[in-house]
Amino acid sequence: MRWALEEAGQPYVERVIGPEDQQSAAYRRLQPFGQVPAYEEGDLVLFESAAIVHHVAQPCEALMPADPASRARVTAWMFAAMNTIEPHVQNLAEIDLFHAQEDWAKARRPAAIAAVQKRLQDLAARLGERSYLEGRFTAADLLTTSVLRILRHTDIVAQIPVLESYRLRCEARPAFQRALAAQMAVFERHAA
Amino acid sequence: MRWALEEAGQPYVERVIGPEDQQSAAYRRLQPFGQVPAYEEGDLVLFESAAIVHHVAQPCEALMPADPASRARVTAWMFAAMNTIEPHVQNLAEIDLFHAQEDWAKARRPAAIAAVQKRLQDLAARLGERSYLEGRFTAADLLTTSVLRILRHTDIVAQIPVLESYRLRCEARPAFQRALAAQMAVFERHAA
Repeated sequence: MRWALEEAGQPYVERVIGPEDQQSAAYRRLQPFGQVPAYEEGDLVLFESAAIVHHVAQPCEALMPADPASRARVTAWMFAAMNTIEPHVQNLAEIDLFHAQEDWAKARRPAAIAAVQKRLQDLAARLGERSYLEGRFTAADLLTTSVLRILRHTDIVAQIPVLESYRLRCEARPAFQRALAAQMAVFERHAA
Repeated sequence: MRWALEEAGQPYVERVIGPEDQQSAAYRRLQPFGQVPAYEEGDLVLFESAAIVHHVAQPCEALMPADPASRARVTAWMFAAMNTIEPHVQNLAEIDLFHAQEDWAKARRPAAIAAVQKRLQDLAARLGERSYLEGRFTAADLLTTSVLRILRHTDIVAQIPVLESYRLRCEARPAFQRALAAQMAVFERHAA
């Protein structure tokens, strides 16, 4: 979400919340599942990171091309990042980060890795010589890169050179660097 | 996808493919991950069911309200259905339909059920007395109902009366009934 706002040049004010807030009725009115982030813009309240990125991208040429067919294709890749790639990535991340020592996780991990690799190889095959999914950087690359970053505790992406180059190309964008710095600053500020 | 086309009153021609087609280079040009469905409309090629529904919904008042704020909220629920609810639903379905007799699946199933129930209880809490997620039936309800249907081998939805009523309300729509009949007819036609 920060990355999209930086690409769009849209100023924002952040409000950091804690686990108790996530359970509160007030926050659930903004985010029905209690997850972060939620987004407020005047009277409009939105949730779900990909949907917020999609909304921010609508009027933003840097994130969303003007012609309807290109917009539909970018949206297709956004849903693919969230529904075809990320569930397998999250499944592996959950095994590695929360259940690594459990027997079921050890038994399941090889298949979880294989499922991730299958999706990423298909993604790499489509990318091929392309620099970006739809001609030039769009919100689709923003979400896809964000999903690839979830795997940074592994070398799975690094083992697929097309994807590693793609990730680095997207992460080199000044807007990404500003967003990452802003995100890390929040963690440092609240470390105490 | 069929349901959306029926709601929109948009005629379509189906082309049934098999597992070999899914691996072919020709099909991969339509669908990079080899999944079904893919969608062709003139020169436009789209993939990812939710994105196709989103595209079909754009000019269709029955699926997508006219005002921008409502459209953004409907899109948020569409991403929520695909990224917050469905991954947990698919995780349970995969355990039940493909791995039920494996030790890791037996060990993991209680947590998989709990993860689904948590999301569905949050969804039910938001629905409350509402008939639909955003005032009246939209593409958000179409996708959410489609996700709930993946659980029809269990009684998880039936145990949450708000969601069971919601599912039945959405499934009672003539467009859903036409889409389901068309889908089942394909299976019957190819059963031999």
